[in-house]
Amino acid sequence: MKNITILGSTGSVGTQTLDVVRHHSDILKVKVLTCKNKIDLIQKQIKEFNPEIIAVMDKEKADELKNKVDIPVLSGRAGLNKVACFDEAELVVNSLVGSVGLEPTIKAIQHNKDIALANKETLVVGGNLIMDKIKHHNVNMIPIDSEHCAIHQCLNGEKKEEIYRIIVTASGGPFKDYTKEQLEKVTVKDAMNHPTWNMGKKITIDSATLMNKGFEILEAYHLFGVELSRIKAVIHPQSIVHSMVEFVDGNLIAQIGITDMRIPIKYALTYPNRIDTCFPKLNLVKIDKLTFRLINKELFPCIKYAREAGEIGGSMPVILNGANEVAVEYFLKNKIKFLDIPKTIRVMMDNHKLIKNPDLDEILEQDKRIKVQTKNLLDN
Amino acid sequence: MKNITILGSTGSVGTQTLDVVRHHSDILKVKVLTCKNKIDLIQKQIKEFNPEIIAVMDKEKADELKNKVDIPVLSGRAGLNKVACFDEAELVVNSLVGSVGLEPTIKAIQHNKDIALANKETLVVGGNLIMDKIKHHNVNMIPIDSEHCAIHQCLNGEKKEEIYRIIVTASGGPFKDYTKEQLEKVTVKDAMNHPTWNMGKKITIDSATLMNKGFEILEAYHLFGVELSRIKAVIHPQSIVHSMVEFVDGNLIAQIGITDMRIPIKYALTYPNRIDTCFPKLNLVKIDKLTFRLINKELFPCIKYAREAGEIGGSMPVILNGANEVAVEYFLKNKIKFLDIPKTIRVMMDNHKLIKNPDLDEILEQDKRIKVQTKNLLDN
Repeated sequence: MKNITILGSTGSVGTQTLDVVRHHSDILKVKVLTCKNKIDLIQKQIKEFNPEIIAVMDKEKADELKNKVDIPVLSGRAGLNKVACFDEAELVVNSLVGSVGLEPTIKAIQHNKDIALANKETLVVGGNLIMDKIKHHNVNMIPIDSEHCAIHQCLNGEKKEEIYRIIVTASGGPFKDYTKEQLEKVTVKDAMNHPTWNMGKKITIDSATLMNKGFEILEAYHLFGVELSRIKAVIHPQSIVHSMVEFVDGNLIAQIGITDMRIPIKYALTYPNRIDTCFPKLNLVKIDKLTFRLINKELFPCIKYAREAGEIGGSMPVILNGANEVAVEYFLKNKIKFLDIPKTIRVMMDNHKLIKNPDLDEILEQDKRIKVQTKNLLDN
Repeated sequence: MKNITILGSTGSVGTQTLDVVRHHSDILKVKVLTCKNKIDLIQKQIKEFNPEIIAVMDKEKADELKNKVDIPVLSGRAGLNKVACFDEAELVVNSLVGSVGLEPTIKAIQHNKDIALANKETLVVGGNLIMDKIKHHNVNMIPIDSEHCAIHQCLNGEKKEEIYRIIVTASGGPFKDYTKEQLEKVTVKDAMNHPTWNMGKKITIDSATLMNKGFEILEAYHLFGVELSRIKAVIHPQSIVHSMVEFVDGNLIAQIGITDMRIPIKYALTYPNRIDTCFPKLNLVKIDKLTFRLINKELFPCIKYAREAGEIGGSMPVILNGANEVAVEYFLKNKIKFLDIPKTIRVMMDNHKLIKNPDLDEILEQDKRIKVQTKNLLDN
């Protein structure tokens, strides 16, 4: 029996993680759940999965929940950090959204927990810190992203020095065939209409701008220790090939499967074992066709900005992520246009005074500051 | 430096193996070459690669060659078996055609040589014997077939008991879209026109009848120890995905690459290392599309016959292979029609009196007998 903590159990990956637990309750047991503010949903989850402790980010909502359940309910950032270290859990699933995931991830690693990571912003802003701690505490970090789960599998039994390049596939999002004129007019509803994956709001917008792919390049850089210039992204509209690794000898290994996040979640939860799936299987002959094409980096500059932030390093990825988080939030509220998202990021990166090797406090401080600054920019 | 023996150095895989050695002479050294009768070509190879000993199957041709070179030239089956055990070679590449490859492979294993196997008939007729000896002598057998090289790579770092099924891809050959009426009229020239791979004559005809895919299912069964019912074949006309493994957890791992046999040859020759390629690389975005479809087993029954022979076991695969070898030879000589190939195999399998656990002598005896019987059938 593997005891797990789910940080962000009411979000898209969180609920799907619980569905995996539901199907595999013989080997997986939930010990901790957390949410931002959806206490009605987490109350149902408590009833079904019997965790031992809960954290709710929103303090008022936490107080409200305390009266309704008979297990401890912690609150705020401190509560989240505390439950991330809960003694009885050996694996922490980080399915939070945004840079809020960084601190609890570090706490969990410091308490020798394995990490199943869906929260890519964590690695974007604090990749160096995290990977150092992973090594130091000798724990596993298994990615839940379908792309990185694919790469992780392609690298099973292989040597890092024999990698020629990593090829991260991208559906291309709903706007892959749009012109600049069309992109100028897209609405939130258009952007939320992802062609192949059903995901949370933030990541769906990141997929439409291709920032998601930029984040994934940075994530792959940290997770697999391969230089940025060897990590490429390619559009694969069918989202069947989840990513590939090309080796120096001309062989490519690809991971293929249906677009169901429960598959990579299960892989991460049960690693290093592969457990019989009860989810639908891929029917190869029902696939119409698989195609690949280049990304238009002029129309979708976020992917360039991410690579640039990764190459500059230091605090720059914190700026990339913080400006993006705020810009996406404003786009979702119809306060800015779609193409204002990359423009905002560009401005904030151009005006940033770099910190070379930020520690955790400096990262958190920069994250906070850039979000305030971006809000100020967009509010005026 | 790895010292190698190439059995069948003048054939398609043999010459391509030498091309790999030519590009990697810093790590590969040829010690032994053999051919059936192409002494002009092997003489050139001797000059370029400086082997220490030669075997020529045809006795007269061997005598002719002896006068032209200053290294030992052995002849006949005995000569082939002897050089397969040559002391200084650590890896034996078996790129022979047909069941003639069985005996020298066994001899080489008994002398603790690793095997790089392109000669699939060897495993079809003597798979049980060979795999027993591989285990007993604790040597490696690395497949050179692009499909099995792909499967071998997909299984790197994986557990056999977590395999759900192996999916062997097939180009479908030149006749995949033909009707029965069209198949009745195909010529040798039509059959030799393989859409994606440039290979030797015998294997090209086996590809057109899909017997090659049937053999590959049996080969996979022996090489990877997966039950026959878990090994499937699917048509993939582009020959870019060379094969796949589907795991119990719903994840598929595929190996992808260009159609250049030097890639799997190099993999087998340099295993367990991957060496920088000097051959062209796959350009994913230049691929038009990848598609998959089912095989029509009624029009191409050889694949069913192979599976049936594998399930019956014992001497039946020897009959399948022997009848096929002769039928293909007769088709190539325009003595029988294309659809007579499966018909001949069916008749010979139907009339065979099974030997349950044939030893090497019994296999060789059955192989000889079925070839004579098939010739008698087709000559009358």
